Amino acid sequence: MEVVQSPRSTLRRKKERGRHDRRSIDAILDEGLFCHVGFTDGDSIFVLPMAYAPVDDQLFLHGASGNHLLRRLASGVEACVTVTLVDGLVFARSAFHHSMNYRSVVLFGTAHSITDLEMKRRAVLAIVDHVAPGRSVDVRTPSDAELRSTLVVSFPIVEGSAKVRTGGPIEEAGDLELPVWAGQLPLHLQSGEPIPDDGLGEQVPIPPYVANFPQRRP
Amino acid sequence: MEVVQSPRSTLRRKKERGRHDRRSIDAILDEGLFCHVGFTDGDSIFVLPMAYAPVDDQLFLHGASGNHLLRRLASGVEACVTVTLVDGLVFARSAFHHSMNYRSVVLFGTAHSITDLEMKRRAVLAIVDHVAPGRSVDVRTPSDAELRSTLVVSFPIVEGSAKVRTGGPIEEAGDLELPVWAGQLPLHLQSGEPIPDDGLGEQVPIPPYVANFPQRRP
Repeated sequence: MEVVQSPRSTLRRKKERGRHDRRSIDAILDEGLFCHVGFTDGDSIFVLPMAYAPVDDQLFLHGASGNHLLRRLASGVEACVTVTLVDGLVFARSAFHHSMNYRSVVLFGTAHSITDLEMKRRAVLAIVDHVAPGRSVDVRTPSDAELRSTLVVSFPIVEGSAKVRTGGPIEEAGDLELPVWAGQLPLHLQSGEPIPDDGLGEQVPIPPYVANFPQRRP
Repeated sequence: MEVVQSPRSTLRRKKERGRHDRRSIDAILDEGLFCHVGFTDGDSIFVLPMAYAPVDDQLFLHGASGNHLLRRLASGVEACVTVTLVDGLVFARSAFHHSMNYRSVVLFGTAHSITDLEMKRRAVLAIVDHVAPGRSVDVRTPSDAELRSTLVVSFPIVEGSAKVRTGGPIEEAGDLELPVWAGQLPLHLQSGEPIPDDGLGEQVPIPPYVANFPQRRP
């Protein structure tokens, strides 16, 4: 399955790095923990980080009902949602050819507000499970009052593209003999030791999605 | 020193997490490896990831001279540049109170193009050094031809804000007795084993900025 390859979602440069199949896009959306949402309030551009969950053909975003970003999105303005994963630094023998390895998804569209309480509950639990698969069944589920104080929007995974860079540096032939270290330094997000909350009973074990983060998502 | 606290750069919610001093903002800009740049081409919003370097009161951004984002920025349109560092996942006993610990900077303004070749060279080397401090003195410096094929823009660190969340979950009193694990899972960017480029002579040692990544920046 492919997303819509519109003029704005077609890569203009380094086209060989572009992907428009849902499998490539979904793999990046599944792995990312947060996105950057861009929108305008008529005067200024805003780019703000936000948690999300991809479910079927949409991303769920949520926040307090007074949240500026979400209120703008719910009003139906054009927005762009970008997820970027950095996989490594690329060192070339020349300054010019330094680069990074990364995978990114850029989606274009307009969101709509989710008002049905059961749908909102599902969306909030999906965001919890996106970060820590399986977490939602362990926790107290959102009350109706909590859901009423939450704005949930659905943003379409319909028009956009992924971009992927992998591999080592691209060098000028004349630079290859320079005595300069070149190559890749892989990077990944690593978890440290879990810090239990104050007052947590000794009998509450650390769940697997915390102990084994990041798990591969289903 | 403070940045300009305009209506758009003043936090509307969770104001206690806001920072407007340059020290807080610079610490985040120093640690980040890439930013997300938001702009509009008149019809659509775009949010794209990009390397950068903070130098004095500006961020340098660079790319190929045909780069759509940079050409728009150089034309003087309003833009927003955001740097986000995720420091951990926050697990609450209720789904509703899950969160993330993070530090982010959001800057507003308009960029201008750097045309002087020496200034462009300095900017390109600053971006190399931002990612790997000290790297620029080891590599072949950009030629005039390379600089002419590069678009460099300066974006002001003048108007914006930082936002910081730290600590454990904020719980409802009624949830504290639930037998659910709660707490923080710290996250950080970790480097793997360096992968030397094909054809690299055995006599070229791994430099300290690769072996010891991430170094504290000066």
